[in-house]
Amino acid sequence: MVSLALGVDLGGTNARAAVVDRDSGEIVAAHKEPLRARDPAAVVDVVSHAIQAATEALGVAVGSFRSVGVGVAGQCLGSTGVVLNAPNLGWRDVPFGTLLAERLGVAVRIANDLSAAAWGEKRFGAAQGLSEAVLVFVGSGVGSGLILGGKLHEGARGVGGELGHVKVRPSRPTTPLRRCGCGMMGCLEAYTSGVNIAARVREELSAGISSRVLALAGGDPARITASVVDAAWAEGDAYARALWDEVADLLGAAIANVATLLNPERIILGGGVVLGCPNLVRLAREQFERKVLVAARQGLSVERAFLGDDAGVIGAALLE
Amino acid sequence: MVSLALGVDLGGTNARAAVVDRDSGEIVAAHKEPLRARDPAAVVDVVSHAIQAATEALGVAVGSFRSVGVGVAGQCLGSTGVVLNAPNLGWRDVPFGTLLAERLGVAVRIANDLSAAAWGEKRFGAAQGLSEAVLVFVGSGVGSGLILGGKLHEGARGVGGELGHVKVRPSRPTTPLRRCGCGMMGCLEAYTSGVNIAARVREELSAGISSRVLALAGGDPARITASVVDAAWAEGDAYARALWDEVADLLGAAIANVATLLNPERIILGGGVVLGCPNLVRLAREQFERKVLVAARQGLSVERAFLGDDAGVIGAALLE
Repeated sequence: MVSLALGVDLGGTNARAAVVDRDSGEIVAAHKEPLRARDPAAVVDVVSHAIQAATEALGVAVGSFRSVGVGVAGQCLGSTGVVLNAPNLGWRDVPFGTLLAERLGVAVRIANDLSAAAWGEKRFGAAQGLSEAVLVFVGSGVGSGLILGGKLHEGARGVGGELGHVKVRPSRPTTPLRRCGCGMMGCLEAYTSGVNIAARVREELSAGISSRVLALAGGDPARITASVVDAAWAEGDAYARALWDEVADLLGAAIANVATLLNPERIILGGGVVLGCPNLVRLAREQFERKVLVAARQGLSVERAFLGDDAGVIGAALLE
Repeated sequence: MVSLALGVDLGGTNARAAVVDRDSGEIVAAHKEPLRARDPAAVVDVVSHAIQAATEALGVAVGSFRSVGVGVAGQCLGSTGVVLNAPNLGWRDVPFGTLLAERLGVAVRIANDLSAAAWGEKRFGAAQGLSEAVLVFVGSGVGSGLILGGKLHEGARGVGGELGHVKVRPSRPTTPLRRCGCGMMGCLEAYTSGVNIAARVREELSAGISSRVLALAGGDPARITASVVDAAWAEGDAYARALWDEVADLLGAAIANVATLLNPERIILGGGVVLGCPNLVRLAREQFERKVLVAARQGLSVERAFLGDDAGVIGAALLE
């Protein structure tokens, strides 16, 4: 008899529930459902339905699980299940853990989605067998998940790992600091996430800069992505070169600083910008190598995430 | 019968051995001895002698201790006792733990001095009873010690906590990046340690800047310290104001970024620059408040270190 666990990955557009084999980390059943509305009650409906669909496929009752783990794209208080701030859902101070537990009749454990993903990579992915590892995610947002001393490090209130909101100073300080989705100025995410890179390029095109980026996006600003900038870089586009120098410098320094502070065994890179921008990744790695403390670099490996989009739901299911 | 532990604080100019009551954290006997020479054999002599003097005062044999903990001002491999880099001692890759253990006939546990100090503060000081705390030290050097999940976090190889070597970008980028004592460019320590602040002021005075700092140092550049700059700031000196704006910005941002990443319950400030520069500390705290992630700020207290210069030797004695 396999031992099963139940996890949910709650993003801004979908909820995905999965039943995970505790011994192998395999997803044995899953169901993904779009979020039609974002008010907490509606999201509880969708998540419950996704869980029902995933468990019914196996003929297992939800009540037979000890608990449900949920990874939420936002800042969460692990101990209370309150989602402090989830910009993609438009939530502030939503007691989602309590709401979902009342609906399901099962204990609910909430964590940040990247903390859950880091735990998934620790249990069955790129950090398996390691005690000290940092998952760095650069996608539509930027963040990290910390495995320290063999455990998931969520900090005093559960909001640890918010690498996207460390403050950085851009190399072109003639422009004012950029505002982040969190409301603060000068966050790493404001300069290096896919969403923010695309927004900045659109702004700067509107302001009159010249770049191959627009042509590579088929002349449609809405189709500009970090990946398109990476393609323009490869063509030698001066604007893309300067932008990638800055973004790579900020990302490389931020990751180097995490390694210098925490001395992990492995840094794991994931997210759509990492996957879609090979030139940016190479430049950021060069900056990382220049900036990481020599003693912290020894014995440190830098790897791609293994579990991809499954890391969050696997990790959520297996949260302790 | 009290249970005793033996610790050593090995700085650049002195070795101090202490016998510590495990139950109260009190130092029951101590002996401090100057380092006349810095080659490893000579330092082993001095440390052994300090230990003998501290233990003989109590009539206890060194061999009756399970182990000796040593906090070293440098980067140390905790597991092997190798000191990778101790600039004040001029050491690179010195197997000090092994050398001292051979001399004493007792197991030796080596740690970075600020890791030891953080552990001392955790056991009997400003972090007592807390699971998540960061000791930030700003003195002749800059560094940190991390208490995470109730334990001392030293990282994969023992070099965790090197906050002084995170890379920062100064606000006056017209000047080239400053070189740190570690050999790298743009480290926090290069801008914010007492030694580096004084060196920079002397350089800039030589280059012709005008400031009250020199007069406040009695006209003697060798007597310039961070504390003198702080006094010039209080007199409204424009040079001191601009310098403190930059140093406070870098320190405040670096500490805010640690809090954003790790979500501790408490940040503990220690070191001579913290003690001697009240205006700088106030400015740095203002920058910290502006830059720390709001969710990580809630429930976070910022306190002065309790144990002062004793933290390192108490923590070293009680290392696990």
